[in-house]
Amino acid sequence: MPTNPSWILRSYPSAMPSVENWALEDRPIPQPADGELLVKTLWLSVDPYMRGRISPAKNYATGFKIGDLMCGGGIGEVITSESPEFKPGDVVMSDHFGWQPFSVIPAASAKSVTITDAPIQSALSYLGMPGLTAYFALLKTATPKVGETVLISAASGAVGQIAGQIARIKGFDPVAVAGSDEKLEWCRELGYRTGVNHRSSADLVADVATACPEGVDVFIDNTAGPIHDAAMLNLNTFGRVVVVGTIALADRFDQPDIGVRHLRRTLITRARIEGFLLDDHEGEYEIGIADLQSWYKQGLLQTREDVAEGVETVPHAFVRMLKGENFGKQLVKL
Amino acid sequence: MPTNPSWILRSYPSAMPSVENWALEDRPIPQPADGELLVKTLWLSVDPYMRGRISPAKNYATGFKIGDLMCGGGIGEVITSESPEFKPGDVVMSDHFGWQPFSVIPAASAKSVTITDAPIQSALSYLGMPGLTAYFALLKTATPKVGETVLISAASGAVGQIAGQIARIKGFDPVAVAGSDEKLEWCRELGYRTGVNHRSSADLVADVATACPEGVDVFIDNTAGPIHDAAMLNLNTFGRVVVVGTIALADRFDQPDIGVRHLRRTLITRARIEGFLLDDHEGEYEIGIADLQSWYKQGLLQTREDVAEGVETVPHAFVRMLKGENFGKQLVKL
Repeated sequence: MPTNPSWILRSYPSAMPSVENWALEDRPIPQPADGELLVKTLWLSVDPYMRGRISPAKNYATGFKIGDLMCGGGIGEVITSESPEFKPGDVVMSDHFGWQPFSVIPAASAKSVTITDAPIQSALSYLGMPGLTAYFALLKTATPKVGETVLISAASGAVGQIAGQIARIKGFDPVAVAGSDEKLEWCRELGYRTGVNHRSSADLVADVATACPEGVDVFIDNTAGPIHDAAMLNLNTFGRVVVVGTIALADRFDQPDIGVRHLRRTLITRARIEGFLLDDHEGEYEIGIADLQSWYKQGLLQTREDVAEGVETVPHAFVRMLKGENFGKQLVKL
Repeated sequence: MPTNPSWILRSYPSAMPSVENWALEDRPIPQPADGELLVKTLWLSVDPYMRGRISPAKNYATGFKIGDLMCGGGIGEVITSESPEFKPGDVVMSDHFGWQPFSVIPAASAKSVTITDAPIQSALSYLGMPGLTAYFALLKTATPKVGETVLISAASGAVGQIAGQIARIKGFDPVAVAGSDEKLEWCRELGYRTGVNHRSSADLVADVATACPEGVDVFIDNTAGPIHDAAMLNLNTFGRVVVVGTIALADRFDQPDIGVRHLRRTLITRARIEGFLLDDHEGEYEIGIADLQSWYKQGLLQTREDVAEGVETVPHAFVRMLKGENFGKQLVKL
């Protein structure tokens, strides 16, 4: 009987997660019940939101318990279908893929992957959650005007790389914040006007001011932390801040985030600071996908993936993504 | 020649302002130049926003310099007019009244006070800046739905007392936060469903939770500080926070406000936090005034004023308002 090495949550991380928080257990290949599919995993996605699910704290979704199989976004091939909607050989995506080679997923969570003119893993990247997050966070929540300065943190990451290019396509003025000069160089290739390296900067507030001489009109905040402060202190009147992620807090997730509070700045600038969750835009995904596909076909969108290989690498890939050691959308190929 | 005792800024406060920050100087009655009016002050308004103007920090408006005459909102009678728009005997309001019995104001800043069925000082209260702030912050920026819980800090103050009553009139569920049981009792008379005394509360987060069993949908934040935290930690999904004032920071205005930052909470709830300045709604004042007047005539609006008397009391009135020692809209009658 073929084995199914599966990553189980062993402990909640108290600071930055490490691979020791998970254990690889050999489990049998599960059998689908009615309304379920057995799928062979082709790609797994590791995403910042999963940090919140390995915490005992309340979050949008129920977290994993100690001993639970880890799950997340993935793409796989249907092996056995107990649903009339899918048949063996179908390629599907779902957020219910286990960190394991063979998963049972609810058929209701699965969507056929019908991409023909791009690699199928794009459904986990620019044609999936990160691309749509960039699209709606920028165009629907932040609503920049042509010419406005749009600062984007984690600018070369899964969401940032797409947000920067949409900003350029739409005539905004995108400015990157990223963690290495190499990443910033690539951001410039994508069309970011300029950028700030937050790891080498001695004065992030001053460096953001230099990079944004007319101030920050829109901030797509994928990080929180000191970059958020630098953006707030450079924010223009009627600035819009979209809180998309808080990855800079990955190492102190369950402790209060103590620091400078910007309520007076919010008042003076009449800023609008808004939390973003992609699920709230579900009814409009098709519009976003159509635009992203069209831009890709026109050669207007580049994307970069950082691919780890093999089921044994999944927690490593997750942790390096949390630490910003990835370059582009972090995926695991099984 | 009649004298004109005038309050001059003597020093910037480093913490909570005290009356020693000003000096009373006897100055001559000024003479209006072309386009100006000499007015005899009838009422002066002291307002939280003036804390920002006695600071060397950048703010929306240029601050006062040491040695400057203090100015603010007031109502007075025109004595000499160098403008075709006004004649002696007119009663006008303006934000350019000095803290003195006789002021020269730009005619362009003056508006006739035409109130006949309410006391004229209402133009500095529910029919003026505080009333309109409550109106637009609640109805235009926060946009509550019928039945939603609206938490209001400084609930018996100039803005809060009106915001709570508008919330009640519109069918929202207003909950007060105020600094004494006596204030809370009056809040209940105004139609607040219940309230929390932030000075006697041992656990503000828990007490707000008890007062708002279905959570906080809208928070009209007149204070910042610990009440802001309690609201954020009780905020519902898609909650709206309107930052109207930061009076809880009056004693540390020029220092960074260090504390818990709520970015993860903002993300999880998809909260919208927005700074509010009344000036941005100038084109719509007439709509707000018409509604406020109509509600007042129907007996739906009560208002309470806290009146100090005489020019010598102005800085005392200002400081006690900053400390929350006033009860209702703080005014000075000259």
